[in-house]
Amino acid sequence: IGVSAALGVVVGIQDSQAGDYPSFKSELDTVVDVLAATRPTAVNLFWALERMRRTAEAHQDTPVEDIKRILRKEALDILTEDQDMCRRIGIHGATLIGEGQTVLTHCNAGALATAGAGTALSVIYQAHQDGKGIRVFADETRPILQGARLTAWELLQSGVDVTLICDSMAAQVMKEGKIDCIVVGADRIAANGDVANKIGTYGVAVLGQAHNIPFYVAAPFSTIDLAIEHGDGIPIEQRNPVEVTQGLGKRTAPVGIRVYNP
Amino acid sequence: IGVSAALGVVVGIQDSQAGDYPSFKSELDTVVDVLAATRPTAVNLFWALERMRRTAEAHQDTPVEDIKRILRKEALDILTEDQDMCRRIGIHGATLIGEGQTVLTHCNAGALATAGAGTALSVIYQAHQDGKGIRVFADETRPILQGARLTAWELLQSGVDVTLICDSMAAQVMKEGKIDCIVVGADRIAANGDVANKIGTYGVAVLGQAHNIPFYVAAPFSTIDLAIEHGDGIPIEQRNPVEVTQGLGKRTAPVGIRVYNP
Repeated sequence: IGVSAALGVVVGIQDSQAGDYPSFKSELDTVVDVLAATRPTAVNLFWALERMRRTAEAHQDTPVEDIKRILRKEALDILTEDQDMCRRIGIHGATLIGEGQTVLTHCNAGALATAGAGTALSVIYQAHQDGKGIRVFADETRPILQGARLTAWELLQSGVDVTLICDSMAAQVMKEGKIDCIVVGADRIAANGDVANKIGTYGVAVLGQAHNIPFYVAAPFSTIDLAIEHGDGIPIEQRNPVEVTQGLGKRTAPVGIRVYNP
Repeated sequence: IGVSAALGVVVGIQDSQAGDYPSFKSELDTVVDVLAATRPTAVNLFWALERMRRTAEAHQDTPVEDIKRILRKEALDILTEDQDMCRRIGIHGATLIGEGQTVLTHCNAGALATAGAGTALSVIYQAHQDGKGIRVFADETRPILQGARLTAWELLQSGVDVTLICDSMAAQVMKEGKIDCIVVGADRIAANGDVANKIGTYGVAVLGQAHNIPFYVAAPFSTIDLAIEHGDGIPIEQRNPVEVTQGLGKRTAPVGIRVYNP
């Protein structure tokens, strides 16, 4: 998401007609603010936008056309670093997965969510490429179904042995001894290590602990927010109730029902 | 479900032309076998069908037309007993819910699932009628969405303060201190007290324990199966994968994906 934001900044200011730094900076700030407002949770977004803003500030004595070129290079650097980061998370994380083990994952933290092979899924891809003969259970991840639509699709394309379950089935699969470890990504990590991620991740973590199943979070340093002491300080987005009542293209709940959608 | 099965037997044999008990019994057995095959999990179904069969056997010296009348009366008795049972479960269970408390429920165990006010929902209805000012969170209960489609609708109709959540949100709601107790129904209860119920119930129970939230099962005696020693002996139905990949009227998972649907 940080890569998209950085590239979004490049696109947003490429047609700028500003002749001096102050008016260019004002246009840049508007673009950054719009992109920052898209998601309150993902700290990687703010990290990338801040990096782009600081790059512009560091070159305020440079002609505007040159700043634009420098910002383009900075965004492409973020992209390259992201691909490299994914690769290294995969190599590091795959050492935690044994031969023939089965991994449970929640939401999508794969190639569709990063510039590289993902975070949680990079670990899975690497273990798969290492010939460990692993299997994956993917939670469908209601309400938006990233697991069913993205994770299941990605892993299927890559030839990984993947089985789709509803979120409500994770506990049963764990109880049946089918899961050796759980690997998820992260939206933001507080200074004390508390992790915020897609709704349902906390439940999977508690269930994993109850069944003595190791739980791993695969995330880059840009996800860590040292400004937030612990998890209670991480904002939780309340999303559109329609995602719950008719999130799958068809109304599935009565008109007038109240919804809680964290 | 037992009531429906008993009434199903009445419907199934009402046009019987059998002149003697053996041929009538043979038709009856066919009807019972067909109804028994509809659900492997719900013991209340088998209990009601067995009661109908025993009633017929107890009157094998009676003319067939009279047996049919006796069976009709037996089915209506089962219906009346079910309504009375629901009422008593509600009165008994409501004493467990305090003023202004919030109840979490999973699946539908209400008026739409029984002849009376339900089991878990009867408890909620009674507490509501007692003026306790209770609130309810209802899990949507994927894959078939009984919670979203039935429970939310029933409670909304009855003026109970109800909020719909996806199954994946139950843990978060518990962590936020929003739930005072959990009340669910049961498909079957083993001799040692192990409970089988809709997929997801076990996860809710484990999460409830982790958050120190009391967990209650509201069920009639006909749900207890003394022939099964403990939970591992209760058959778990594996249902159609399509419920997971396109259970909401629209394909939401890639073609070719393997599904586990307990």
